[in-house]
Amino acid sequence: MAEIETLLFANETFYDAFSARDVQQMRSLWRNSNDILCIHPGWGPLRGYKDVLESWALILGASEKSKITPINPIVTKAGAVGSVVCLEKLENQYLIATNLFLFESGSWLMIHHHAGPTSAPGYDPLTTDIKQQIH
Amino acid sequence: MAEIETLLFANETFYDAFSARDVQQMRSLWRNSNDILCIHPGWGPLRGYKDVLESWALILGASEKSKITPINPIVTKAGAVGSVVCLEKLENQYLIATNLFLFESGSWLMIHHHAGPTSAPGYDPLTTDIKQQIH
Repeated sequence: MAEIETLLFANETFYDAFSARDVQQMRSLWRNSNDILCIHPGWGPLRGYKDVLESWALILGASEKSKITPINPIVTKAGAVGSVVCLEKLENQYLIATNLFLFESGSWLMIHHHAGPTSAPGYDPLTTDIKQQIH
Repeated sequence: MAEIETLLFANETFYDAFSARDVQQMRSLWRNSNDILCIHPGWGPLRGYKDVLESWALILGASEKSKITPINPIVTKAGAVGSVVCLEKLENQYLIATNLFLFESGSWLMIHHHAGPTSAPGYDPLTTDIKQQIH
């Protein structure tokens, strides 16, 4: 239970750093590894600490502070890997993210972020015309 | 090394089932668990074997066969969790996917799929005008 709470806390800390445009905090959240991966909305994959954190420095430096709130988090754990899927609320816009963390030396370090478009919360594609929704 | 190869094979098998619109094969690839998660492009998250596989049955049943090819796969492993990030090539369109697998009883079972839009391969956002690319 404590692990789930600390995992949610790590996820919230990521969005705090994002909202505050805090590059130093963002650097401290990610695992310093060549294996980490980040997929910003619409981008290709960035791999490794150098490229991933360079992208965050650019993104956090390029725009005004604005609150990004994680909502409806779904937490799962498989061994030392924790997953948080959540909606990202930005003013009246929503994105969806898969965030992965590795439990190492007593804390959850971010190893993967993939964010992209989604429907608004409450929308259920399984009860809607599927042919408009498919790949 | 063998684990990486079998992980890539599991990822390819997923796209084979997708391309062939083979619901039975798709059902056999996923872990039968309440914790699995699937985010189709633009959808909200679907959780658990029942909802995830219901969505695949709808998607695979709703459209003609068409080849979906995984390209440029990036494979990483953390404990029993394997990750494959790849582009999904559909005719002249590209999507990007995060696919997660759990190694259990000697095979890789799918536990997570998140697909969404991406730039074409070779596009490097770090060398392009960042202000057009940010969240």
